[in-house]
Order: sequence, then structure tokens, then C-alpha cells
Amino acid sequence: MKPASNHVGPMLTDLYEITMASAYFRSGKHNDRAVFDLFFRKNPFGGEFTVAAGIAEILAFVENFRYSGSDIAFLEKTLPRWSPEFGKWLRQIDCSEVRIHAVPEGSLVFPRVPLIRVEGPLGICQLLESTLLNLIGYPSLVATNAARLKLAAGSKRVVEFGLRRAQGPDGGLSASRYAYLGGLDGTSNVLAGQMFGIPLAGTQAHAYVSAFSDLDEITYGTLADTDGRERDFVGLVMKYRDRLGYGNTNNGELASFITYAQAFPSGFLALVDTYDTLGSGVPNFLCVAFALLELGYKPKGIRLDSGDLAHLSKRSRRMFKDAEKRTGIYFERLTIVASNEINEATLYSLNLQGHEIDLFGIGTHLVTCQSQPSLGVVYKLVEINGRPRIKLSEDSSKVTIPGRKKACRLIGRKGYPVADLMLGEDEPLPQAGRRVLCCHPYDRAKRSWVTPADVVPLHELIWDGKLVGEPASLDDARRRVGEQIGSLREDHKRPLNPTPYKVSLSENLFEFMQKLWMESAVVREIS
Amino acid sequence: MKPASNHVGPMLTDLYEITMASAYFRSGKHNDRAVFDLFFRKNPFGGEFTVAAGIAEILAFVENFRYSGSDIAFLEKTLPRWSPEFGKWLRQIDCSEVRIHAVPEGSLVFPRVPLIRVEGPLGICQLLESTLLNLIGYPSLVATNAARLKLAAGSKRVVEFGLRRAQGPDGGLSASRYAYLGGLDGTSNVLAGQMFGIPLAGTQAHAYVSAFSDLDEITYGTLADTDGRERDFVGLVMKYRDRLGYGNTNNGELASFITYAQAFPSGFLALVDTYDTLGSGVPNFLCVAFALLELGYKPKGIRLDSGDLAHLSKRSRRMFKDAEKRTGIYFERLTIVASNEINEATLYSLNLQGHEIDLFGIGTHLVTCQSQPSLGVVYKLVEINGRPRIKLSEDSSKVTIPGRKKACRLIGRKGYPVADLMLGEDEPLPQAGRRVLCCHPYDRAKRSWVTPADVVPLHELIWDGKLVGEPASLDDARRRVGEQIGSLREDHKRPLNPTPYKVSLSENLFEFMQKLWMESAVVREIS
Repeated sequence: MKPASNHVGPMLTDLYEITMASAYFRSGKHNDRAVFDLFFRKNPFGGEFTVAAGIAEILAFVENFRYSGSDIAFLEKTLPRWSPEFGKWLRQIDCSEVRIHAVPEGSLVFPRVPLIRVEGPLGICQLLESTLLNLIGYPSLVATNAARLKLAAGSKRVVEFGLRRAQGPDGGLSASRYAYLGGLDGTSNVLAGQMFGIPLAGTQAHAYVSAFSDLDEITYGTLADTDGRERDFVGLVMKYRDRLGYGNTNNGELASFITYAQAFPSGFLALVDTYDTLGSGVPNFLCVAFALLELGYKPKGIRLDSGDLAHLSKRSRRMFKDAEKRTGIYFERLTIVASNEINEATLYSLNLQGHEIDLFGIGTHLVTCQSQPSLGVVYKLVEINGRPRIKLSEDSSKVTIPGRKKACRLIGRKGYPVADLMLGEDEPLPQAGRRVLCCHPYDRAKRSWVTPADVVPLHELIWDGKLVGEPASLDDARRRVGEQIGSLREDHKRPLNPTPYKVSLSENLFEFMQKLWMESAVVREIS
Repeated sequence: MKPASNHVGPMLTDLYEITMASAYFRSGKHNDRAVFDLFFRKNPFGGEFTVAAGIAEILAFVENFRYSGSDIAFLEKTLPRWSPEFGKWLRQIDCSEVRIHAVPEGSLVFPRVPLIRVEGPLGICQLLESTLLNLIGYPSLVATNAARLKLAAGSKRVVEFGLRRAQGPDGGLSASRYAYLGGLDGTSNVLAGQMFGIPLAGTQAHAYVSAFSDLDEITYGTLADTDGRERDFVGLVMKYRDRLGYGNTNNGELASFITYAQAFPSGFLALVDTYDTLGSGVPNFLCVAFALLELGYKPKGIRLDSGDLAHLSKRSRRMFKDAEKRTGIYFERLTIVASNEINEATLYSLNLQGHEIDLFGIGTHLVTCQSQPSLGVVYKLVEINGRPRIKLSEDSSKVTIPGRKKACRLIGRKGYPVADLMLGEDEPLPQAGRRVLCCHPYDRAKRSWVTPADVVPLHELIWDGKLVGEPASLDDARRRVGEQIGSLREDHKRPLNPTPYKVSLSENLFEFMQKLWMESAVVREIS
């Protein structure tokens, strides 16, 4: 299994990982047994859930984790101080002594519950940090964004169009891959279709329409009907143009629609806003669409890429119906695609206004995740040689939860998840039907008794020196997103002020954390 | 020359480019001579300039532009309708008939002036669109962001720390590469150092500090001084600890600093906020730093990664001075690095408050360009077979400037650029010392006479079926950014409400555009 990008490898890291590993090595600590948790502290986009993604890709990274001779040579030149023994160690390390537990790819995850727990020699686990954060952060963010956009779009389809707005080639590819994982219906990115089997979408851009100036640029006027007979296609289009009184449209645009339909008579979808959506684009589309229908083809619809999308979609739909009534010829439902600067807020606003859009193409706002363009994933040391570690902070909510721990999801009577619970590694999991005390991680006063109807462990062992089982396929992960979002209570999903989902510690873990915290904190002297 | 990412190739595109090419092919238009302009309509970040970047990378793309047999096989399965002749054409095309003019990499560019002009067979030029936009958009955005951050940081250094917050592996790598191009001083990204020779920076993270619980974890207490004699390093540190009365600090943190200094005695830089910046981190740093100094090494300083950076940097500086006074031992200036969620606004605010920071590490806000995470670059057909094309829009400012054109920069008497001027390809360039009428692209009333002291053509031919000359090196491009920003008038660069830089058309081009516009626009009927 190879990573998707040629850039993924042990050199895709921050320099300090290597200087730290070197310092561990020098003080003989590199083989200490370390446990790191990878998690985040806040759900993105003002929401209350996050989709975990990128896990299959970290397995590919870990499986191929090895420094080459030229990597070592580069580091030797670069590090402020080099020891040949450290170089020798670097050259021979791999992940055969590392164990990784993770939530299944596509799971819903919540703040502070580890997405991944990495255990193994301190030096090696440290060297994995930056790459793991890179490979989990954006995928989880964009998958979450996609899941939210699907919620906002209701029953409508949503397709990703963001390649040109992404952070370079792989930004675009990651966006396509993980937006599909998060629930989108397809992508325009051909490479993503080729590499990951994601359904592809897209027809024409303004350049195609602008490339034609007039009807005389149509080089041949015929099109074979679905029975294979050549027919005078341009003549048919003109017949409908006359009949509908659409003479006052842009002829270059009409020529472009005709030639496009000749190339792709099935599924003809026209971009209608190059000159004037209602004055030219929609009328031109309709003339071509009726002609196609007469030849036995099923035209698909239009794409709106500017202007007031609610208004234009409703007016376009009305023009479709009006033309059907006037000709007495009826289409199967025509599709209206919309694609200009759409984001979550636009979708909710369109829902309120009413619209006739069937499919949204989302580019910029999907890939850039503008309202929160990064997920603050962190990778924190929580145990070393069996001793739990804690990282303090001026900000209490940034104090890490120490120790090797497990986590489970408590399912309530009605089948909804009610809380995630973290426990020490040695504590038994709660049992269905037995009540368990769930403590807020920081606030002693916030505690609840929960009697779960079911208890689901959250992590599985995915790497134990080698692959354990098979990484989830993209389709499996996508299905899991759908199932888990479906089973989440509605109020956790609403766009405005959703109810926080409870993440809690067992009483045991809570008390243990408090004790360690007090031991580590310096009592200040103020004078 | 190979593209940096294995994903860059003709399949890294939007599906509609291929369906359009197929339709052009079917109607015999694929060999029409087309001219496309690549440009943007608005400078990012509320600013009035943009740095052009990504140009060397598009040359690598164009040079290797070829569909493989398996690409064709995939497209055959994927396109709604396939013609074997089109497949044969796709299989044999390359960029040997394409010409590309571009501004030199690292140039300042302004709205609507093409960064790149692509000429050649319509079908092939169309197929380049999405990849070119991807390869230019983010690089120019992040280079501009970097240039702005350097302006905001004044004389202070700025280093990029964003790998973990980028859109996947190549997002991180592009950020490092183009942030350096835009003027930053280095990166933490090791692969960027290896691939592009960018200076690397970084020392330790919280995990290193947390990995030590107490002083007994120090496995050996010595360190060789600069003359090579082994000395009791821990003893020395403890001597300073006693002398300065710093007994009440976290011992694990002190152990971590000691072992780190043993590994890297030159350039020792400590992360001081793991437990308590002023109560533990800075005192522990100082004990180790004085011990290093006594052994002949030059300690570097501290990194602040949380809290009030202005306050903590000033307090830390004061503690340095106080300790120097009390010991009578003086450091060369210690460096204070700051790195928590810094953006342009933070930098201006720190400047106002006063601070003692020497180097800023910027991650999230550098790579995500949060305040504007994408540059709206577009690729518009402006001429076909010698006939100029225009794309209209409901929004006048989105109407394209038609025709094959050239552009120059007019330099005023004081040496500042005063305007960019676009002209028809056949018009002569203005002459130094002769006044020329500069027309606003859309507003007939806005015209100026400019008498330039110098006239600089903006574009150069970089691809004429093959490479023309050598692509600019990263260092050359970076130098160009520095020079051009240096020569831009201050009011164009100020952070709030900068003066717009004039972008204009020759009178000839203006009148021609107006004519074409009126001819193409549909006159609506309102009843």
C-alpha cells in the first residue's frame, strides 16, 4: 500500500521532530515506551460533530516509514549537531514496534476523545507527529464540511468542484477524496475519479460557449437519432426557435449548445449564463432540448453560475413549464444545477426562499472550509514508561487528559448516542443497563448518571507492527458517515447553536487527572 | 523538469475540460487558434497588490503534458459518449503548438492584467485550464500572504510552521515553497528544505518537555565545553539555579532543557510554556543558558507558544536582563520566538502594544490564508481565429477584456509604478516622456493622462512549443518580490484602505471593448 502523494514520507515533517528525536537518542530515551493521543479540542464550523478521516492514508504512511540514505545525508548537513550513531539509528528504524488504535474511518468523533492512539518507542512515535497531523487534519475537516453541506442541502445532490481553489494539486485531490467520504455525491476532479473511483460530474464552461460567435460556425447540421437515422438537427432546433419565438437570443451561444448536443446528445446540460440567463441561455437551451427529445434523447438540464440563484432557478423552471405547455411536449424533469460561491449559509437561505435547484456544485467553500480552514488536531504525549503525563496550559481547556485510556460511546434508550466516555486502560467498560457516572473533563460540578442501553467501544487496533485487518474502503467509510449522522440526535446537528454532545471521563480518570494536575502545577508567588 | 507533485498531469483537471475538448473535436474546432488570459479580479486580503507565483511549476506541467494509455482507457469508460478518433487525438497531443507569455515569477500583479496568456489549438488550451488555475492560484495567494506578513512584521523575521494545518501533504509543501518565495525567512518543513533548499527552523515541542518527569531521568550529567573538556553540566545548571533562587520550577521541564542542551549546545532554544512561562519555563531556560555560556556556547533563546505574547515577551526580556544583572554575566542578545495563532492583525496589534519578539512562527494563518483562502483566478477565452471574444456578466466588473493584448507598467518620475496599461497586441507601447491616455476598464468617465518616466513591458515568452530560457529559480523570484514591494508606493501597501493601484486600458482597447460589449449584449424586453 503506497501513500497517494509522493510527498508523504518521513521527510514530510517539521524539523523539530527530528531534533527532538536526536535529543531523545542522545539521552538514551528514544526507546522509552510512549503513548501519544491525537485529538482536537473543538468541533469545526460552530458545529457539534466531526467526521474522522485520513486513517487509511496514515496506514500507508506508517507502512512505508523509512529514511533513505539521501534523507540521512540531507539531515546530516542540516541538523545543528550530528551524531553518526543517531544517523545509523534513523537509517534502520521503521514502525515494526509501533501500535496504533484508531476510530474506524468515517466515524463521528467529538472533542478530546482520541481519534488515534500511537504507542511505541518514544523517538519513533515522536517522528510520526507532524505527518499524522497533516494526514488527519484536513481530511477530517473537509469530510465534516461535506457532511454539513449535505445536511444543509436536504434531499438535493451536492458535487465538489473545487480543484482550482485548493492548496495545490494534492489539496484538490484530498478535497475530492474526503468530501466524497463525507457524503458528497461526486466530483469534477478527473484524477480523483481515476484514483479513487469517485463519480465524476461536469459538462461545459463559459469558454465553450464563448468559442462560438455565430450559427455559421456549425460545421455539420445533422445528428443521428436514437434509431441511428441521420436527421437535420439544426433545422429541428430552428423549428422550435421559431415556434417558441426565441429569435432574439445570442446566436453564438445557440451554436455552442447545438455542437455540444451533437457531441453529447444524451444527458445534455447547458451552461446558460454566458450572455443573459433568462433572455438567451434558457431559451437557447430549450430549442436544443426539444430537438433532442424529438430525436429520442433525454436532455438533462441547465447550469446557473451567476446571479440570484433562487430567483433564476424559479424563473427557469417556469420557462420550462411554459414552453412545455406551448409545445404540448413534455420533458422528464429537467435538472437545474447551481454553482456560484455556494456555502452552508447560502444553502439554508435558499431553502428559506424556496428554489428549484436539484444539484449544487460547490468549489471554493468546500475545499477552503472558509469559516474554519483548519482543524486544530494535536498529538500529545500522555504516558511514558507506564507513567502518565499531563501538559498544562494557562487555558484549563487545553490541559491534556493523561494516561493510556480507552473510550466508548454510550447509546441511550431511544438508540441515539448520549455521551462518549473515556476510562483508564485498566477500567472495565460500563455495562448496558447499569448506570455509570460521567464526569465533565474539567468541571467537577458537572456530572451525570447515564444508564446506557448499549455500550460501543470506540477504538480498534489497526497497526501492530504491521497492518491488522484491511483499511476501510472509501465506500465503507462513506457509508459509516451516513449511518452515524443518521443516528445522531437532531439537536446536535442543527446549524445554529446545536446542543453539545457530552464527552466525559469516568470518575476514576477524572480524579486521577485532577491529582496529576495539582502535582504538576506550579503555585505562583505574587507580591 | 518534472512537476513537484506526482498528481500533476493532464488528469488533474475538471471533467468538463475533457467533455468540452471532445465537443470541440467533434465539431472540428479543436484546432482553432485560441488565446486565453489567466487573471484575477480582486487583490486578496483587502490589499492592493498580489505576488505572481507558480509559473515555474506550470512549465513543468506543460513540458510533461501527455495522456497515457491508461488515462485514455479510463476516460473511455467515463465520458458519456466516446469517439475512438477523439481518443486517438488525446493520446498524441502535447504542448508543442502552445505559446505561453507570463509575468516573471515573483512579479507584483494587479487585477485583470493577465498573469499568463496561453495561445494555441483551442482543444489543447482548453485542456490546460483547471491545472493552470490550480498551479497558479494558491501559490500566488500564499506568496502574497507571506509578503504581507513580512510587511506587518517590520524588521522581525517570520518563519512558516504550517505543515500540519495545510490541505494535505502538498498543501503543506506548496505553502512552504511559496511563502518563502513571498519573503518569509524559512520553514519548519523538512521536505521543503530538502526539495527547494529553503532554510529550516525548529527546535522542540511540548512532547519533549513532557517526556521528562524529574531530574533523575538525566542519564549522564556531563557536557564537553567548546575546548572539548567534559564538564559537570548538571552541576553547573544547579549552581545557577541556586544563585538565582529558581528552586520552585518544574523539575521535569528543567531535565528536558538540560538533555536538549546536551544534544544541541549551540543555538539552544527552549519552549518555555509547557507548565508556566514566567514561573518555570524562563527560569529553567536561564539556568541552562548560563551554564552553556560558561562552557563557551552561545544559547539562542526561548519560544512562547501561548498566552499574551506582548506581555510575556516583555516580562521574559526583563527577566533575562534582571538575571544578567544579578549574575554579572551577559548574553549576546537572546532571541524570543512567538508562535501561537499569529496573523496579520496580531502583528499590527503587537507593534502597537510594543513587544520583545524577534521571530514569529506562523502556521495556520499562513497556510490557510484564513481571511481569504482562495484567489479567484480565472482563465478566459479572449480570441479565437483572430476574432476577439468577450464574456458578459450581470456584474459589469466581470466582463472580460477581449482580444490578444499586451501590458506594460508605467513608472512615474519618482521611480514608483503609477499604473499598468493594457493595449491591443498591435498597438505600440507608450514611450517614456510622452503622455498616454489611461482609461478605466469599465468607467468611461475615469481617464488619466500619464507621462511615464519609464515603460516596462510586463510579459515575457516562456514557452514556445518548448521552454524558452530557464524558469526563474526560487531565490530569483524571491528577490524580485522584495525589489518590487520595495518600489511600490507606501500608500498601496498600508494595511487599512490602501490606495488602489491604477489598472487601465489604452483608449483604443477601451473603445474596442465597448463596441464588442454592445454588440454581444442582448437588449431585454420588459413588459
